[in-house]
Amino acid sequence: MLTSEGCPSTMLSIKDALEALEGKWKLLILFALSSSGPKRFKQISKEVAGITDKTLSKELKLLESNQLVKREVHDTFPPTVEYSITPHGLSLEKVIAELHYWGLAHRKQIIGK
Amino acid sequence: MLTSEGCPSTMLSIKDALEALEGKWKLLILFALSSSGPKRFKQISKEVAGITDKTLSKELKLLESNQLVKREVHDTFPPTVEYSITPHGLSLEKVIAELHYWGLAHRKQIIGK
Repeated sequence: MLTSEGCPSTMLSIKDALEALEGKWKLLILFALSSSGPKRFKQISKEVAGITDKTLSKELKLLESNQLVKREVHDTFPPTVEYSITPHGLSLEKVIAELHYWGLAHRKQIIGK
Repeated sequence: MLTSEGCPSTMLSIKDALEALEGKWKLLILFALSSSGPKRFKQISKEVAGITDKTLSKELKLLESNQLVKREVHDTFPPTVEYSITPHGLSLEKVIAELHYWGLAHRKQIIGK
């Protein structure tokens, strides 16, 4: 494994990451935002299957507070709001890729298809 | 990013992974179990700072049901119970490593130290 000592400082950085990404939605929202530029709320809601508007709204605020998502209000009539992934959000690419590969293996192991 | 299309099947595998690993404790417990062989409940509890016994007990059961942790009862007097990480649990090594690296970068970015 990563270290053979269960090192406390490694534990701390993993904990930092898990707290910033807590729950099952944040990485899915970031994955949806990682393609095709800024998106409207309704479009994200459609791409992240199963999320409620209330949860999406809450998660977007948390992602914004962690500098992973940027919210922009455009001066149109009526005003429009778009969300985009920040460079810091994009730095999760490898985490998301490894979760994807592991998710495939896990489905084979547990769900068996 | 992983794909440029927000591909639904990639989304599904990421969701599978996130559901199996949900919450901020499971990967920390697996990380604690990844070194030095089987461990007693109290030892895991000590290494995963901040976890309550109730939560640890619940999380260990969930990890066992996902074949990530193995629970063994030894026929001693009184009986002793030990937990170890399974090969499927060890296959999370890269996920944990990437979270560790990202956690370090996130601490610099947000917490600033």
